[in-house]
Amino acid sequence: MSDELAEKIAKRMHADERTSAAWGLEFVDAGEGWARASMKIRDDMLNGHGVAHGGMIFALADTAFAWACNGRNVVTFAQNATISFLSKAEPGETLVAEAREAGVAGRSGVYEVRVTADDGRIVAVFQGLSRTGGGKVIEEEE
Amino acid sequence: MSDELAEKIAKRMHADERTSAAWGLEFVDAGEGWARASMKIRDDMLNGHGVAHGGMIFALADTAFAWACNGRNVVTFAQNATISFLSKAEPGETLVAEAREAGVAGRSGVYEVRVTADDGRIVAVFQGLSRTGGGKVIEEEE
Amino acid sequence: MSDELAEKIAKRMHADERTSAAWGLEFVDAGEGWARASMKIRDDMLNGHGVAHGGMIFALADTAFAWACNGRNVVTFAQNATISFLSKAEPGETLVAEAREAGVAGRSGVYEVRVTADDGRIVAVFQGLSRTGGGKVIEEEE
Amino acid sequence: MSDELAEKIAKRMHADERTSAAWGLEFVDAGEGWARASMKIRDDMLNGHGVAHGGMIFALADTAFAWACNGRNVVTFAQNATISFLSKAEPGETLVAEAREAGVAGRSGVYEVRVTADDGRIVAVFQGLSRTGGGKVIEEEE
Repeated sequence: MSDELAEKIAKRMHADERTSAAWGLEFVDAGEGWARASMKIRDDMLNGHGVAHGGMIFALADTAFAWACNGRNVVTFAQNATISFLSKAEPGETLVAEAREAGVAGRSGVYEVRVTADDGRIVAVFQGLSRTGGGKVIEEEE
Repeated sequence: MSDELAEKIAKRMHADERTSAAWGLEFVDAGEGWARASMKIRDDMLNGHGVAHGGMIFALADTAFAWACNGRNVVTFAQNATISFLSKAEPGETLVAEAREAGVAGRSGVYEVRVTADDGRIVAVFQGLSRTGGGKVIEEEE
Repeated sequence: MSDELAEKIAKRMHADERTSAAWGLEFVDAGEGWARASMKIRDDMLNGHGVAHGGMIFALADTAFAWACNGRNVVTFAQNATISFLSKAEPGETLVAEAREAGVAGRSGVYEVRVTADDGRIVAVFQGLSRTGGGKVIEEEE
Repeated sequence: MSDELAEKIAKRMHADERTSAAWGLEFVDAGEGWARASMKIRDDMLNGHGVAHGGMIFALADTAFAWACNGRNVVTFAQNATISFLSKAEPGETLVAEAREAGVAGRSGVYEVRVTADDGRIVAVFQGLSRTGGGKVIEEEE
């Protein structure tokens, strides 16, 4: 794994995910064992209280997690994820999710993701458990 | 809490959530301590592997959880949620999330949600922890 | 899997686990996809507030989960577990953990565990994710 | 919160917890928003496979979490915790759990805990959600 390869993988995943366009999700940066994604909260992401639906906050965190855990170029899937919500996110705010590898053993990996808002406050903390499948995410000579 | 009131609350939440239209999310039914929501997997919900993004499966489960935990007509928020993914969901499949109250004590509640596909297979299992805030979800004389 | 086999496996696991004696843990009953264990809260299980340490409540729930997920007679391990604490447990109380299979797909399984006290109140709700390894737990002709 | 106060609180909690003696649990160090605890895996902590019971690994992580989240000297409780198991721990190994604050908002806090073995390998990753109650943990003039 290298920073260069990990970044290339995250960009490719961003390009291939149909949800990227649907959610206005942007690639921020990525390297060995980590990745960052951002998303602006739109009106169609709000719950009945007029704040970001927890499902959209999870979706952002889960995306950064997916990019980070595939960075070794082995196709890897989420098995489990936990999210704790600490503050609300308002329409118009841009959230950033930063995923970092906490530990890897065999085919399993654990990643911690923090979701923060423009003003620096923490919105949510996420922990994801991944498991590698088979095959490469991208051809390395690309 | 009554089945009638819980159903009225879930319907109102479904109507008020901007995400309902965005995700094509449908109210199925609801009663005391439980609720069911459904969602058809569309192309703009797919990840790079061509299957439903985990974020959308979570979003569906989280919605059913929100309806169930607000059914006592006290405004209630998600604090934490965990999801385990058991099988993939393909585009065109309709998923149903069924949330059921596992236990309530003081202002906290725990809800279990199962997400299943048309063919009956289980797609994900979710556990949500809620906390009541203040105020009513709807006026009861409505 | 049969109720008889599942019960035999849970009893064998109870007998083999060194923690059973250490924690005064008792086998209650078990069948296909479920198991129940009980434990009396002793003074050496208390935290600084004089109530049961969360670690001991988890340990009880985790034990019932282990018995339930091994009931198909394939050696199975915990990969992830989540617990939400709803009420405190006092010294002298006997807690019962009941684990039930929520879903199984391929080598993965999800189990829900509820921990209750003598008076029927719910103490904690747990969700465990398991993965089968290889080999049998017991020889079936035993 | 200061490093000095946080350390004093963790030491007091270690002294007051009945489980400290029962589990042979040792205070390592602590400061603002973090704490470390260690525990040697004994024979009475083994499951039927002869490795550390997941309940004991959780109990160690949960203890470090409790020390860290009480470090502001406001009595604080665990509401939820998630653990992912990455490798087994053998009898005779000493495990260290290091808890660190990931984010705090209002009365809620999230802490990440990593459990490692003597040889540096990661055994488990834990995420805890806390909620402050009332009252102080220790009198500050102590």
